[in-house]
Amino acid sequence: MSERQNTRVLLAERPVNRAPVESDFRVERGAMPEPGEGEVLIRNLFLSLDPYMRGRMSAAKSYAEPVAIGGVMAGEAVGRVVSSRHPGCQPGDLVLAHTGWQEYAAVPGERVTKVDPDLAQPSHYLGVLGMPGMTAYCALLYLGEPQPGQTVLVSAASGAVGQVVGQIAKIRGCRVVGVAGSDEKVAYVRDELGFDAALNYKKPDGSPKDFEALSQEIAALCPDGINIYFDNVGGLVHDAALANIAQFGRIIVCGTISVYNELEKQDIGRRWMRQLLVKRARMEGFLVFDHAHRTEEFRQTMAAWLREGRIVFREDVAEGIEAAPRAFIGMLSGANRGKQLVRTGQE
Amino acid sequence: MSERQNTRVLLAERPVNRAPVESDFRVERGAMPEPGEGEVLIRNLFLSLDPYMRGRMSAAKSYAEPVAIGGVMAGEAVGRVVSSRHPGCQPGDLVLAHTGWQEYAAVPGERVTKVDPDLAQPSHYLGVLGMPGMTAYCALLYLGEPQPGQTVLVSAASGAVGQVVGQIAKIRGCRVVGVAGSDEKVAYVRDELGFDAALNYKKPDGSPKDFEALSQEIAALCPDGINIYFDNVGGLVHDAALANIAQFGRIIVCGTISVYNELEKQDIGRRWMRQLLVKRARMEGFLVFDHAHRTEEFRQTMAAWLREGRIVFREDVAEGIEAAPRAFIGMLSGANRGKQLVRTGQE
Repeated sequence: MSERQNTRVLLAERPVNRAPVESDFRVERGAMPEPGEGEVLIRNLFLSLDPYMRGRMSAAKSYAEPVAIGGVMAGEAVGRVVSSRHPGCQPGDLVLAHTGWQEYAAVPGERVTKVDPDLAQPSHYLGVLGMPGMTAYCALLYLGEPQPGQTVLVSAASGAVGQVVGQIAKIRGCRVVGVAGSDEKVAYVRDELGFDAALNYKKPDGSPKDFEALSQEIAALCPDGINIYFDNVGGLVHDAALANIAQFGRIIVCGTISVYNELEKQDIGRRWMRQLLVKRARMEGFLVFDHAHRTEEFRQTMAAWLREGRIVFREDVAEGIEAAPRAFIGMLSGANRGKQLVRTGQE
Repeated sequence: MSERQNTRVLLAERPVNRAPVESDFRVERGAMPEPGEGEVLIRNLFLSLDPYMRGRMSAAKSYAEPVAIGGVMAGEAVGRVVSSRHPGCQPGDLVLAHTGWQEYAAVPGERVTKVDPDLAQPSHYLGVLGMPGMTAYCALLYLGEPQPGQTVLVSAASGAVGQVVGQIAKIRGCRVVGVAGSDEKVAYVRDELGFDAALNYKKPDGSPKDFEALSQEIAALCPDGINIYFDNVGGLVHDAALANIAQFGRIIVCGTISVYNELEKQDIGRRWMRQLLVKRARMEGFLVFDHAHRTEEFRQTMAAWLREGRIVFREDVAEGIEAAPRAFIGMLSGANRGKQLVRTGQE
C-alpha cells in the first residue's frame, strides 16, 4: 500500500427493507486527504464496525443524520497522528476519532481524543474500553441497577456489548443468562466468560425457534423470572424475555438489530403493555452519548477490571479496509465472534 | 328495600374476547350476611366501578385472582358500619372496604379503613380521594416526574384518573393536553378543568380516527413533543402519543382499557422499541398498591387541593345496585361522564 494513496468505502446505495449487500458499498482508492488549518492527519490502525451503522445507511428518521449516497461510511477508528495542524496533537499520538471507513482521514483536532497506549492495546479503545464497553457499563449499572442475586438476561451475549454486560453483571453478583445465535457462542459465554447459563435461540437448521419453545427455555433457566433484560436485538428474543419478566423488572432497549433490515417499515408484533402494567416493569431506551459525563469513571473502572483479569474481551478482526463491507454484512447476521474490527494499517 | 335482605351482583359468565353484556352478571336477592368473630357488617352507600374489574372477570393471568363464576363481583365501596364484632369499628363509622358489588357485606375488621367524613363527601373516597385519585397522584408525580413547562398528554382525560392527572399537572406548571372520546368530554376538560387543549380521538360518526390523522392532531397540539404520556387506554391513542414522544419522554402505563375485551388474545400492533431507543424514552407499568406508603401524603395533599378549589372532580352516579352491570358496561365503552359510581343506599 502506497503512502500516497487512501482507500475509502463509500455508501453506493441504501438497502431498503432488506439486508445490505456488497454492492451497496463502493471501495475507492484516491488521493491522500490534506489536513486544513486546525486539522490532524490520522493513519487508522483499526476501524470499528457496529450495528448502529445499519441505521446510518437508512434515510429513516433516527437520532443521527444518515450517510449521504456517495459519502464515506460513518465509523470510529483508532489511529496514529501522521501530521498535525492543531496544537493539541503531535505526530505519533495514538488517537480515537470518527474518521469514517477509510485508511487516512483529516479530522478537526478538537474532535480527536488522545488515548493512553499503556492502559490497553489500541483496538480495545473501540471495544471493551470504548463505545461498546461504555454502553454495557452505563446501561447495565445506571438503567438496570443490578442487585446481587438478581437474574440478568442478555441477548447478543457474545457480541461487543453483550459479553461486557454479562461479565459486569457477574462482578455485581447477579445470575447471568446469555442468548446467542450458535452453539459455539453459547459455549463461549458460558465456558470462557463465566455466564451461569446460555441458550441458542436458533434451531439446528439455523432458523429461529418459535416463541413458545424459546420462552419456555428461558423460563427453565430463569426460574425466578428476569430482573434485568438487556435487549440488544428486539424481535423474537425480546418477546420471549418479556414473557418471563419479573415484578419490577427492567428492560434496557440498547439495540434492535433483529429489525435493522426493516427500519423503513413498522415493527408489528406482540405488544407487552399489559405485561409491563401487571409486572410494573420498566422499559427504557439507551444511547451512550447521554452518559458522556461518565467517560472517566468508566475508563478507570474498566481498565482496572481488565488489569485484574476480571473482564476478558474477544475481538474478530478482518484484514484490510476492503474487507469492511463483507465483515459488516456478516456481523449483521451474527457471523462475527466477538467485537468486529477491521485492521486498516500495521505498525 | 327491606333491612332484612341483601342484593348482590354475581359473575354469571366470563366474557372471552368480547365486551361484557348484562347476562354475564346475575342480580340476586338473599339473606343478610352475618358478621363472624372479628368482622363488621357494613351497609354500603356507594360502590365504585373501575376499569380494572374487567380484568377480574377474565381468567387470563394478571396481578390479582379472577372472580369465581357465581362469586360476588369484586369492588370497593364506602359505607356505614351497622354492627361490629371488631374492637376497631363502631356502629355508625364511615368506612372504606372491598365489599364487592352488594348492599351489605360482612368484612374482617382489619381490612376496613375508617374515613373522615369531615374531609370530603363520602363518594370522594372512591374517587378523587381514593384509589383513582391516588393512582393519578403517585403515577404522575413519582413515575412521570413532571417539570414546569413540560407537556403532559393524558388519555381517558375526563375519566376518574385522567381528570385528576390533568389538574395535578396544571398545578405543577405543565402544559396539559387531554384525549377523550366525545366533543362533550373534550369541552369539559378544556373549559371546566382548565386543560390547555384537548382532542376527540373519534370521528363524528363515532368510529376512531386513523393513526396518521390522530398523530398529526396531537403533533399540532404538542409542538415540542410529549414529555409525559399518561396512558390509561393503550391501542390507537398510545400509538399516536408514542409517535410524538419527546426526547427522554416518560410513558406511564396505567391502564389498557382499549384492549380489555381482548385480554385472552395477544395484543398485536405497532411496537415502539426503536422509538424508545431513538428518543431514550421510558415506559413503565403502574399499580397503585405499590405506593401504599404514600397514602397519608396523598390524602393530606389532595384534601388541601380540594379545599382550595384547585382540584374539581366529576362523578357519574347510577342509582341502585341493580344498575351496576349496565353502568359498568357503559363505562367500558366511555358512556360515563367522570368517575362512575353506584349509589347503593341512602342516608
